[in-house]
Amino acid sequence: MDLLEPRHEVEIVEVGPRDGFQPIGPFVATERKLRFIREAFAAGLRRIEIGSLVSASAVPQMADTPDLMRALADDAGLLPQILVPTARRAEAAAAAGAPMLAFVLSVSPAHNHNNVRRSPDESAAEYEAMTSVLDPGLPVRLNLATAFDCPFDGRVAPDAVFRLLDRLVPARPDAEICLCDTTGRAVPRQVAALFAEARARFPAVRRWALHGHDTYGLGCANAFAAHGEGVRVFDAAFGGLGGCPFAPGATGNVATEDLVWMFEEMGVSTGVALPALLALARDAAALPGAQPGGRVRAALEARCRV
Amino acid sequence: MDLLEPRHEVEIVEVGPRDGFQPIGPFVATERKLRFIREAFAAGLRRIEIGSLVSASAVPQMADTPDLMRALADDAGLLPQILVPTARRAEAAAAAGAPMLAFVLSVSPAHNHNNVRRSPDESAAEYEAMTSVLDPGLPVRLNLATAFDCPFDGRVAPDAVFRLLDRLVPARPDAEICLCDTTGRAVPRQVAALFAEARARFPAVRRWALHGHDTYGLGCANAFAAHGEGVRVFDAAFGGLGGCPFAPGATGNVATEDLVWMFEEMGVSTGVALPALLALARDAAALPGAQPGGRVRAALEARCRV
Repeated sequence: MDLLEPRHEVEIVEVGPRDGFQPIGPFVATERKLRFIREAFAAGLRRIEIGSLVSASAVPQMADTPDLMRALADDAGLLPQILVPTARRAEAAAAAGAPMLAFVLSVSPAHNHNNVRRSPDESAAEYEAMTSVLDPGLPVRLNLATAFDCPFDGRVAPDAVFRLLDRLVPARPDAEICLCDTTGRAVPRQVAALFAEARARFPAVRRWALHGHDTYGLGCANAFAAHGEGVRVFDAAFGGLGGCPFAPGATGNVATEDLVWMFEEMGVSTGVALPALLALARDAAALPGAQPGGRVRAALEARCRV
Repeated sequence: MDLLEPRHEVEIVEVGPRDGFQPIGPFVATERKLRFIREAFAAGLRRIEIGSLVSASAVPQMADTPDLMRALADDAGLLPQILVPTARRAEAAAAAGAPMLAFVLSVSPAHNHNNVRRSPDESAAEYEAMTSVLDPGLPVRLNLATAFDCPFDGRVAPDAVFRLLDRLVPARPDAEICLCDTTGRAVPRQVAALFAEARARFPAVRRWALHGHDTYGLGCANAFAAHGEGVRVFDAAFGGLGGCPFAPGATGNVATEDLVWMFEEMGVSTGVALPALLALARDAAALPGAQPGGRVRAALEARCRV
């Protein structure tokens, strides 16, 4: 059975509990996180990035990821995705029973160094080391952060993406490949072009994903462009959480409810029940320290009649 | 000379002074409006919808449109667009020296009746009456409001749009045709499909335009989809103004700065200088009673570095 196979025309991967909560200063209690995760699952979001195994001093909000993994181990149908940046963290996650892993490295040297104090090539070696020791039956995703644009270096050349994929696709040919617009500065024509060329160069890759941010208002536009190139897996965060803690106004991930609205209204099924999603998105947006984003929550509340 | 011919790869029509200011309760002084219009022109926005000739009791914010027309009559290069809903208003605008007119009617009967107490067919007769008396050299745009969705009746059938165009395109074959997403509920696949079919059915129409709202976060996505179908003229409002006065949260027109950002970053020239536009968009967003929208203002101010 292919655990990552989308069950609907598109699969939305809920990353609110990881990318959305990560920049929130006040610690969100583990019990509260569990409730969000289970409500998201009940709304139809099967694959949920529940946290990451990273330095708890660097990202204190993720300190309870092992607790979440344990608590959710028996939730039937839920597919918790755990983000890891090194082989050692990946092995720890697998040993703790993670049902799937998302390994992240940044295409841009400056961003990768800032995150994990390694060059992209050093992180690529970590990915290879991880795949050589992991059970080959454990589903893996490869996240290429800053695949379009870097907060330090600006636009990222497609060749830098392809050079990493030339090396890393053979390490786990069955991995899902996610190209991440970390800054939200990708534009739809660029998104379409990069996925078109990536799919042409790596025809053996079965599944491509887009991780988008809505910082410049292009979260949905970029998802639409990627969908036009055959991408069927999309990351999103309930409430549009995920802003940068050091930059008020720099809103975060594309809101799950905005993506669900767009796809469902286009007749593309997501499997997500919008009313249930909206209820939890409103709760998430109201978390102390959260920087919510997205449009659909407010639009459906206001629903102008004139 | 074709006054409406885009000078750049896409032409952005600034509708902030009309659609953006219209729902603002406190009257924006005529001198302040003139400053916004001239700053927008200086930023590179040549065609600007400066106001409408409508009932001043129904839309008090538009009461000074004749004054604006007079004041701007000698501004070289500026192309003021005046919105009119009837033949009588169109004749008054032409008599007052309007260099171009945008006639508006709604495809949806409920919306048209709510706006002008006429059926769409009665408004179509007004358009025909207008074209029969106007100087055929005066540039005309036909705005079809609620071409995708109606706040009262929901989704609008494409056939209702084509039925009106079957009748009205022959009345002024050279008119620019603008399909308006009045509610912001249009989705990109629908936008692409409607323009594709419209262009196929009416190959003689030289210019198509999209008037989009960002209420559901799809302002840029819909513009990208329309651009993919050959649309080269896009309405937008500085600061994303244009929300519904009776529905806080129902944000308005797609922000001019968001569209300029998207197109310019895609390598599609707009002729607009973003820094100058941002300065006036910030002023517009700060107007008392304004409901601003858009993302790019905040994103460029915050510019997260981590």
